[in-house]
Amino acid sequence: MQSVYVAGVGMTKFGKDPRPLVEIFCQAGQEAFAATGAQQVEALYIGAMNPEEFTGESNIASQIAEALGLTGVPAMRIETASSAGAAALQAGFQAIASGYYRRVLVLGGEKMTHLSTSAVTRILAEVIDREERQCGATMPALAAMVTEKYRQKFRLSQSRLENMLCSIAVKNHSNGSRNPLAQFQQAITRETYLASKLIATPLRLYDCAPITDGAAAVVLTSEKTDVRLAGIGQGTGPLSLRERDIFTSFPATRIAAVRAYQMAETSPQNIDFAEVHDAFTPFEVITTEDLGFFPPGKGGDAVIDGKTALDGPLPINPSGGLKARGHPVGASGLAQVVEVTKRLRGHSRGKREFKRGLAQSTGGLGTNNLVTILERAAAPMIQNPGLPLPPQPPTVAPKKATLPTRLTEEGEIETFTILYVTPDGFLPPLALALIRDRSGRLVMAQGEDNVQLKIGREVYLRRIDDFYLFTVKSQLQKVQESLKRLLRRGAASPSKEDSPAEKKL
Amino acid sequence: MQSVYVAGVGMTKFGKDPRPLVEIFCQAGQEAFAATGAQQVEALYIGAMNPEEFTGESNIASQIAEALGLTGVPAMRIETASSAGAAALQAGFQAIASGYYRRVLVLGGEKMTHLSTSAVTRILAEVIDREERQCGATMPALAAMVTEKYRQKFRLSQSRLENMLCSIAVKNHSNGSRNPLAQFQQAITRETYLASKLIATPLRLYDCAPITDGAAAVVLTSEKTDVRLAGIGQGTGPLSLRERDIFTSFPATRIAAVRAYQMAETSPQNIDFAEVHDAFTPFEVITTEDLGFFPPGKGGDAVIDGKTALDGPLPINPSGGLKARGHPVGASGLAQVVEVTKRLRGHSRGKREFKRGLAQSTGGLGTNNLVTILERAAAPMIQNPGLPLPPQPPTVAPKKATLPTRLTEEGEIETFTILYVTPDGFLPPLALALIRDRSGRLVMAQGEDNVQLKIGREVYLRRIDDFYLFTVKSQLQKVQESLKRLLRRGAASPSKEDSPAEKKL
Repeated sequence: MQSVYVAGVGMTKFGKDPRPLVEIFCQAGQEAFAATGAQQVEALYIGAMNPEEFTGESNIASQIAEALGLTGVPAMRIETASSAGAAALQAGFQAIASGYYRRVLVLGGEKMTHLSTSAVTRILAEVIDREERQCGATMPALAAMVTEKYRQKFRLSQSRLENMLCSIAVKNHSNGSRNPLAQFQQAITRETYLASKLIATPLRLYDCAPITDGAAAVVLTSEKTDVRLAGIGQGTGPLSLRERDIFTSFPATRIAAVRAYQMAETSPQNIDFAEVHDAFTPFEVITTEDLGFFPPGKGGDAVIDGKTALDGPLPINPSGGLKARGHPVGASGLAQVVEVTKRLRGHSRGKREFKRGLAQSTGGLGTNNLVTILERAAAPMIQNPGLPLPPQPPTVAPKKATLPTRLTEEGEIETFTILYVTPDGFLPPLALALIRDRSGRLVMAQGEDNVQLKIGREVYLRRIDDFYLFTVKSQLQKVQESLKRLLRRGAASPSKEDSPAEKKL
Repeated sequence: MQSVYVAGVGMTKFGKDPRPLVEIFCQAGQEAFAATGAQQVEALYIGAMNPEEFTGESNIASQIAEALGLTGVPAMRIETASSAGAAALQAGFQAIASGYYRRVLVLGGEKMTHLSTSAVTRILAEVIDREERQCGATMPALAAMVTEKYRQKFRLSQSRLENMLCSIAVKNHSNGSRNPLAQFQQAITRETYLASKLIATPLRLYDCAPITDGAAAVVLTSEKTDVRLAGIGQGTGPLSLRERDIFTSFPATRIAAVRAYQMAETSPQNIDFAEVHDAFTPFEVITTEDLGFFPPGKGGDAVIDGKTALDGPLPINPSGGLKARGHPVGASGLAQVVEVTKRLRGHSRGKREFKRGLAQSTGGLGTNNLVTILERAAAPMIQNPGLPLPPQPPTVAPKKATLPTRLTEEGEIETFTILYVTPDGFLPPLALALIRDRSGRLVMAQGEDNVQLKIGREVYLRRIDDFYLFTVKSQLQKVQESLKRLLRRGAASPSKEDSPAEKKL
């Protein structure tokens, strides 16, 4: 396989950008050309998540080729939801690695700020499973439910969880304040974090990446440069929450990481720093665990203890991450690669010398993830890394049936959130929960009210048209039910001893 | 470069398909797996043009991986407008050629028939340059203008043009009648063609590919099979008509063809049959010329003389083409590869033996085109083909400025059409023309009426808000103007001798 190197890179100032999308793309591309010292490329690989709905533009690959003055040059657009920029890098990598092309320009970009928050939320929510979306679920809602599960699984107190999330937001904003291309260049205090509004419990405004315009560009080449694309991998995972065996890890990241580490002949211990997909602060913790940097449940401690700080042993998101650098969805995965390259080349790294950096990008709710490892070409090859690889990806479960049309009328809360920023047609605050019914199946449901929500709590469940409503059982109801069961047990024949609810199935 | 072979292929029955898009994709994929004898692939490459707007589904790559029972397997979606299926094949080819993967599943699909014709027309028209679109231009309108230019350049009479277009429609419907997976399986007569309604002069209903649902699938592998992917190439061209130097050829096809022929070490003379992108019948003629099968202006004679018939020396679109097989936009480019593979393998080829077939796919109005050459792996290698390559692609013009805000008020018709099926907000019949103003710039404009349209005719041009209106000058107006000029020349000072209209710039 032909080795692939990074030549010039480019990136626009992330934030609100009044220019049309194609112009934003072009600026990043022209910067990468200028840094490479040449405009000749044989092809363009362009990551964009949804320019059709964000901007009304289609045929974006041909448009960008033309706008760059490269009419004639082959151009294709790549999409894997919010990891599209990283996927475009992978397609460009394969094109060079095959020897079919010798130099290509990879681009990633998106324009979002001209739309209302509710319009952006609706478009972003299209990456979610349709049935969960119909219930009012948004990306922040599902991220919040994952967070609640994480808290429960690793037995974190509310205040420990808050400390963990807050530490990530404060760290990433502090890092962003040193990045002239970041959307937010102001450090924030813990007080600012705690005073920010709730979006979906337990996530606050400062737990969520902003809406952003921007583009990034990387010239890949078969000629040797100072930065080598050492490893790359991709994996997918289930779309819906209710089809998951595990909520507190994204298997897609683990699959991608194993491949990238193997190809780079390295291991998590040899990574000097990483840019990871912190679209929501808890994702940073989960991802550093999935990448094998910290054991499951220990990613939060690492942040709180300063291990992932800019001057810590393993800086995570030294650029500010999606949180502070901004998150133009199709750009983020490639912007990470731009940031890693710059840091390896010595920009803004201070006295430290970095040899190997990693970028991890997440598409949707952890459904299409990529890992890329870059190293300084002078970095010594590790002959026998004795691979302490990250935990093996869990065995992939076969495709399950879609939502059952009949359900038992009782269940318990698997995870939940209260959504304060709702999509059009849903009034806040909106209680959402994943309910496990008596047969073990999961269903997304709206709460009739939003009190007494807790993982494990028993609920009644009813279906209304296309969606489900749940109510938490009161103490009185529970006592009444126990009584009924006792009475029935006394009166009924042996064949009726089991729960009548289960028989209905 | 690792050789790449075709293993199993699959394809749904094209036409109206009531199933959700993901299910349509899965059927094609499962057929290809069944034909390959194994479901193990290392990645999915999925061509789809615009599932977001056609079906409201996003994150389609992850959805398809999950629905195929392949959760975990890397999946990416590729888009190049209506050639997305062919572009996905190219990305999959590069992945195998690099050695990064050994076996991948390439898919292409689209679901369109559930929407109204006007909604589909609007979504398809997003691939057109924005300013031309605002004028009411649709894909059929621009294809019609290209046709009118072709007629004028090669001095075809109206009846010769009609004969040429009709011959393609009749041939492709006849071929489709033998293809059990084609949308239309009825041959048509010349009378049926001539009685069909005008869509955009001179194009009739039977000149336009239908709206279709469907998917195609190809398993690519590094293991030797009976069909080798011998050559592949891609090229781009300007989006807008008004930025073109040439209207009667698509340079993007020529660029793609040169690369594919070079890689396959072959030439047009060694191609036994081809599937080409006949979204509009005139595109088949232009494409067979761009591919080097016939000299410019001679593609029509070839059809009329039966050279491209099923039993002719160079069958073109033996499957029925987009015209009769149907055109689910993201599927078509890959469906061609499925058809070529089947024919090479001896399905439905009768007594003839085909060694080498070509597939050509067009994105937008010839803006993102791909050429793929497949050959029977037993086919003898041509050592020195003495390449009589197709004409060199024209030098790529540098990017021109966008639409000027001020224009001279006179110009002449470069090409035109009368559109009978208009997008929402435009009443039929709608006269559209590309007008060349006195400074040589081109602008798309609506006619104030639709009489006396002809290439070269002089018009007045006025700007109203975002678009332009033109009126053909009457004989009286021309006489009056000549008179005025004569009078001015007599009275004016020497510095005012030139056209006052030009001075305004």
